[in-house]
Amino acid sequence: MSQVVHEVMPGHPVAVLTGPNLAKEILSGQAAAAVVAMADDFIASELQNIFTSNLFRVYINRDVIGSEMGGVLKNVIAIAAGMADGVGAGDNTRAAVMTRGLAEITRLGVAMGGDPMTFAGLAGMGDLLATCMSQQSRNRYVGEQLGKGRSIEEIIAEMHQVAEGVKSCRTVIELADEHGVDMPIAASVVGVVHGGESAFDAYRGLISRKPTHERHPG
Amino acid sequence: MSQVVHEVMPGHPVAVLTGPNLAKEILSGQAAAAVVAMADDFIASELQNIFTSNLFRVYINRDVIGSEMGGVLKNVIAIAAGMADGVGAGDNTRAAVMTRGLAEITRLGVAMGGDPMTFAGLAGMGDLLATCMSQQSRNRYVGEQLGKGRSIEEIIAEMHQVAEGVKSCRTVIELADEHGVDMPIAASVVGVVHGGESAFDAYRGLISRKPTHERHPG
Repeated sequence: MSQVVHEVMPGHPVAVLTGPNLAKEILSGQAAAAVVAMADDFIASELQNIFTSNLFRVYINRDVIGSEMGGVLKNVIAIAAGMADGVGAGDNTRAAVMTRGLAEITRLGVAMGGDPMTFAGLAGMGDLLATCMSQQSRNRYVGEQLGKGRSIEEIIAEMHQVAEGVKSCRTVIELADEHGVDMPIAASVVGVVHGGESAFDAYRGLISRKPTHERHPG
Repeated sequence: MSQVVHEVMPGHPVAVLTGPNLAKEILSGQAAAAVVAMADDFIASELQNIFTSNLFRVYINRDVIGSEMGGVLKNVIAIAAGMADGVGAGDNTRAAVMTRGLAEITRLGVAMGGDPMTFAGLAGMGDLLATCMSQQSRNRYVGEQLGKGRSIEEIIAEMHQVAEGVKSCRTVIELADEHGVDMPIAASVVGVVHGGESAFDAYRGLISRKPTHERHPG
């Protein structure tokens, strides 16, 4: 989105407001924390003052691209976490999918110019957690239904709103290929959502990969 | 523990096996991922081969201290996440507590010689997630009961096993003071568990702190 704004309104400062901010909970008066990301610290702290309230805590971050990418990429991992729930996997598996999922979206985000620490913060890990844990998340729901063996056509037909990751997962894998980044979890999501693969087979495929070094895959 | 082993068996290589590994799920045949941490890559990959099975995926990491600290510190944050559940907070708040909680245990772990990336991996974020999400976690349970307004004495009296974070939270804050690290969430846990503060007041206190820069607190 910041690229689009730059094209349409060249020279204008752009800020991104993002984080674990499920709209329904904010409307019902629950506390939440968010990030306002922009290169200019001065305007950012003005925006921070405008948006911060007793219940909405806004932190500053300078990484616009990373903050945007966190919000986009987490949807694909939420489908994978939902698939783990749907096939009946436990908390260990879910935690591993989310942790390795964050690692792969961080790799892509960094390749695209983001800061790795943004992905460890509210715009990355925070948004990913809220989306993967929430019963309100459409992406998690789609994954869960796929995990139970239903077809993507059937699931989409009964939904009133779009689950963003269903469309974006293909673009994410294209970007990963372009940047030479390995994203096995996102690739499995594409296989199930668009390739007719079953969630159970995707899950088997993921756990049969040879584990290597945690940060320096061989 | 690695320091104790070094004292008792000086010169012996020490490895740490840790991660999101709730024992019950592993025993019931669910897939899980773990980290084996040690300085020596050669012995580490031998251990990786020994422990890896079809359902148990073991990654290598060189950071012994960070991997150990992840396993210890996550218990304190799990009490805080449980408190958020107990006071009736939603997924946004829980995600914020876990994300900011991981940020503060990372700060302490790094001050003690750990690698920040370990805390973004299975031994840090992974273990934290499994513990904060699991209905089996004793630490999360203690926090939830505190959040509901019960006293720590009452909660402990009815439990058959120890919730590690109840004891360790005080030591964690001592270490944080020693290393000059700010840990507002862990300090709130100590206030509720040992200082007679109510979980609701601790929660109010946390959300009334002035938000600053996400990574460069002023």
